[in-house]
Amino acid sequence: MTARTPIKHLAAQQDGPITVSGWVDTVRDQKKVQFVVLRDESGAVQLVNPAVRELDETDAASAGRLAITETISGLSQGSFITVTGELKHDERVKLGGIEVKIGTLEVITHAIAETPIAEDSSIDKRLDWRFLDLRRPEQNLIFRVQTTFLHALRTWWVEHDFIEIQTPKLMASASESRAELFEVEYFEGKAYLAQSPQFFKQMAQPAGFGKVFEVAPAFRADPSFTSRHATEFTSIDAEMSWVDSHEDVMRMHEELLVAGLTAVKQKHGAEIEALFGLEVTVPTTPFPRIPLAEAKRIVAERGYEVPRADDDMDPEGERRIAAYVKEEFGHEFVFLTDYASSIRPFYHMRHEGDPGLTNSYDLIFNGVEISTGAQREHRIDVLEAQAREKGLDPEELGFYLDFFRYGVPPHGGFGMGLQRVIMLLLHQPSIREVTYLFRGPNRLTP
Amino acid sequence: MTARTPIKHLAAQQDGPITVSGWVDTVRDQKKVQFVVLRDESGAVQLVNPAVRELDETDAASAGRLAITETISGLSQGSFITVTGELKHDERVKLGGIEVKIGTLEVITHAIAETPIAEDSSIDKRLDWRFLDLRRPEQNLIFRVQTTFLHALRTWWVEHDFIEIQTPKLMASASESRAELFEVEYFEGKAYLAQSPQFFKQMAQPAGFGKVFEVAPAFRADPSFTSRHATEFTSIDAEMSWVDSHEDVMRMHEELLVAGLTAVKQKHGAEIEALFGLEVTVPTTPFPRIPLAEAKRIVAERGYEVPRADDDMDPEGERRIAAYVKEEFGHEFVFLTDYASSIRPFYHMRHEGDPGLTNSYDLIFNGVEISTGAQREHRIDVLEAQAREKGLDPEELGFYLDFFRYGVPPHGGFGMGLQRVIMLLLHQPSIREVTYLFRGPNRLTP
Repeated sequence: MTARTPIKHLAAQQDGPITVSGWVDTVRDQKKVQFVVLRDESGAVQLVNPAVRELDETDAASAGRLAITETISGLSQGSFITVTGELKHDERVKLGGIEVKIGTLEVITHAIAETPIAEDSSIDKRLDWRFLDLRRPEQNLIFRVQTTFLHALRTWWVEHDFIEIQTPKLMASASESRAELFEVEYFEGKAYLAQSPQFFKQMAQPAGFGKVFEVAPAFRADPSFTSRHATEFTSIDAEMSWVDSHEDVMRMHEELLVAGLTAVKQKHGAEIEALFGLEVTVPTTPFPRIPLAEAKRIVAERGYEVPRADDDMDPEGERRIAAYVKEEFGHEFVFLTDYASSIRPFYHMRHEGDPGLTNSYDLIFNGVEISTGAQREHRIDVLEAQAREKGLDPEELGFYLDFFRYGVPPHGGFGMGLQRVIMLLLHQPSIREVTYLFRGPNRLTP
Repeated sequence: MTARTPIKHLAAQQDGPITVSGWVDTVRDQKKVQFVVLRDESGAVQLVNPAVRELDETDAASAGRLAITETISGLSQGSFITVTGELKHDERVKLGGIEVKIGTLEVITHAIAETPIAEDSSIDKRLDWRFLDLRRPEQNLIFRVQTTFLHALRTWWVEHDFIEIQTPKLMASASESRAELFEVEYFEGKAYLAQSPQFFKQMAQPAGFGKVFEVAPAFRADPSFTSRHATEFTSIDAEMSWVDSHEDVMRMHEELLVAGLTAVKQKHGAEIEALFGLEVTVPTTPFPRIPLAEAKRIVAERGYEVPRADDDMDPEGERRIAAYVKEEFGHEFVFLTDYASSIRPFYHMRHEGDPGLTNSYDLIFNGVEISTGAQREHRIDVLEAQAREKGLDPEELGFYLDFFRYGVPPHGGFGMGLQRVIMLLLHQPSIREVTYLFRGPNRLTP
C-alpha cells in the first residue's frame, strides 16, 4: 500500500514529515506561492509550495523546486497525487489549522482538465457523471452514514439471534403484483425479478429459522418518476416467528431503528451537523401509533380530506399526519396501523372479529412512508380464501401456499427501503441523491 | 410474542415451570407414556406425557389429561405446538439430560401427516421441499455459520474504514462476458443482470471512496450443472485504493478470512464438530502463495499434466496443488498468483516488464477456487489498449473507461463466492446444500 496518512488523522499528528495521497480539489497558483487543496476519503488539507519560477544555478535544489512549481501550475482538478512534505500546525490556516509544505509531488493520474459537472449542474447531469458527483464531501458522508446505519442494524439482529438469509432474486412467478414485474429471458423460458423477498423470508418460518433478516436489491418495473421511486432499490427485511400481532413487529422495528440512529449520531453526528446543518435525533420508544382511520380523522379535522376513493392515505395525508405527530409528540416517526383489508395484500392477517381490518402498519419518517409491516396469515384455509378473494390464482401461488401445509408458526415482519430512510434522515430531496447508482425508467447508466 | 424459552437455554435453567414452542420432530406413543421430541431453531428437547387412555370420573383432571393424550396420539410430524410444563433435569435422558413434563399443549398448526421428503431423498427432491429440508439441524447450522461468517467480515471492513456500497444489478451492457448474460425486458428496451459488481466497485475508486465492500447477488446465465455453479449466487466483493500490487489485496483478503473463520470457530466450533465431525481450522497468515506456472510444474512433477491448451489450471489441478500445500505447509488455503494475461480479463494489471503475466491471483480453499483477485489497470491508455487487444468494443465500454479519465488512484480487489466458501468450510458436496434456494438452468422454484 502507498504509505499515506489519511487526511483526517493529520490534525492529531505532530509537526514533521508526512505523506498524503488524494485528488486535487483546487489549485491557487500565485506568483510567489502555490496552494493546493488535496482531498481524500477522510477530509481535505491545504498543501503549500513556495513557487520557484526560474532556475537559480547557485542553488542545487532549484531545478527540483522549479519542476514541482511547474507541475503544480499544470495540475488539473481531480488528478490523483501523492505528496511527501512537512506537516505544520498553523492556526491561521482556515482549513483545519494545518498545512503541508510540499517536499515531493508525484502525479498518479492526470485528470482531463475540463470537469463535466459543476456545483449547479442538474441532478440528471450529475448522475451522468456520478463518479465525480460522489467526490463531494456530502456524498461521501451519505455513504458512510449508510454503512454505519446498516452495520448497526445487522449487529442488532445478530445479537438477537436472527439468521441472515439470501433469498433468490430470480423467480418463476410474481411475488406481489403482476403489474410491476421485470421479465428475464431464462434459457428456454422466462423468469421474473423479485419485487420483494416476501414469500421467501416467510419460507424461513416453516423452515424453523425463527428470526431472519436480509438486506438486498429489489426490483419494481414502476414507470413513475417521483423523488421516492426507483426500479431497483435496497430492501431491508426482517421476519420472525411467534408474534402475537403486528405490535411485536413494531416493537422489533423501533428498537432496530433506535440502534441504527444511535450509531449514526455517535459516529457522524458532528459531521452531519457541519455538512447538512442537521441534528440527528435518536427517537424515543415507543414510537407513536395511530390507527389509519383515526389518522384520516385527524388530518380531516385539520382541513385535509384525503382525495382517494379507497381507504388508503395519500402522500400529502402522510405529510400532514407526520406534522401533527411532530407538533403533538415531538416525534419524527409514526406507525399508522390497522389498514383496511381492501388495500392490503392477501397475506396480511386480518383482525379477529373484524375481517375488514388487518394486523398491519406503515411506518412514516419525516412525512414519508419508509416501510410496511404486518402479521402474516399462517392458517392455510384462511390464507387460501383471502388469495381467492383478491382474485389470485391459487395454482400459481402453489409453491407459496405449500409453506403453510406442513406446520408453520405465527409470524410477522417488515420491509423497509434503505434509500428512503437515508434520504429522510439527511433531508435530501430525492432518493437519487442517496443511491450509489440510481435506476429509473429511463436511467440504466452509468 | 409467545413467551417461550428457546430450547438451547433449557439446560441452564432450574427445574420448574417452562413454556417451549417449536415443531414436532418425532412422537413415540406408548401405552403408558408418550414422548415427543420438540425442535426449535436452537435445539431439541424431549417432552413426556403420562398417557391417560380412559376417563376417570373420580379424578377431576382426568378429562384434560385424556384430551392431551389423544392430541399427542394424533400429532403429525412437523406440526407446530406450544407446551407449558415442568422442566426436569434427569441424567438418564439421552437428549441433553433434560425433559419437560407436559402440562398444557396447544397445536398451533397441524402439518399434513405425510412428509414429502425423507432422510434418503435425492438432493433434487429435497430442493423441491427446501422449507422442510431446512428444518434439519445441519441445515439450520449452515445458515447460522453463514450469518456469523458474514457478520465478522463486515465488522472487519467497518473497523478498517471500508464503505459499504450497493451497486445496481440492472445494467445497460455486460460487465464481464456477453456469453453468460441474462437479458431483461426493461420498459421499451433491454437491460442485463450484473454478472459481478466489478465495474461499479471500481467506480468507487475515482469517486474517492478509498475502500469499499459489497455482499450481493450476482447472476450468470451459465448452463453448467456442476456442484460449484449456480445461475444466481452471493458475491462477496471488496476493492481498495492505493495498492502497490495484488500482494496488498491478498493481505487484506487473508486477514478478512481469518476474522471470519475465527468468529465461526468461536461461536459454532463445538456444534460443527458434533454435527459435521469437522474441526474448524483458523488459518495462519500469510497463506502460501505459488505463482501459477510453478504450481503447474509442481503438479506435473507429481504426475498430473493439466489437460488444457491455454495457460490455465483445471479443477483437478487445483485439487492437486491444494493437496500438495496441505502436505507441505499444513494449510487449507493457497493463493495461485501471476496468471497469464491471455486468460485474465482486460482490466487486470500486467507485470511491469512482462506483459504476459498479470498482477492477479485465485484463492483455492480445500481444493476448489473460491475467489479471483487482482490489481486493476488504472492507466487509461494501457486499459484501452488491453480492451482492444481482447477484442472488446471501446464504444460499449465507454461509461467504464470514463471512470479513468478524470483521475483515479491505483487500486485492486477481489470477488469471492459466499456459497463456495461455506460449502468447502463444512465439507458439503454441493453449493445446493448451502444455498437458501438454489437457482440453476432448470431450477427456478420454489
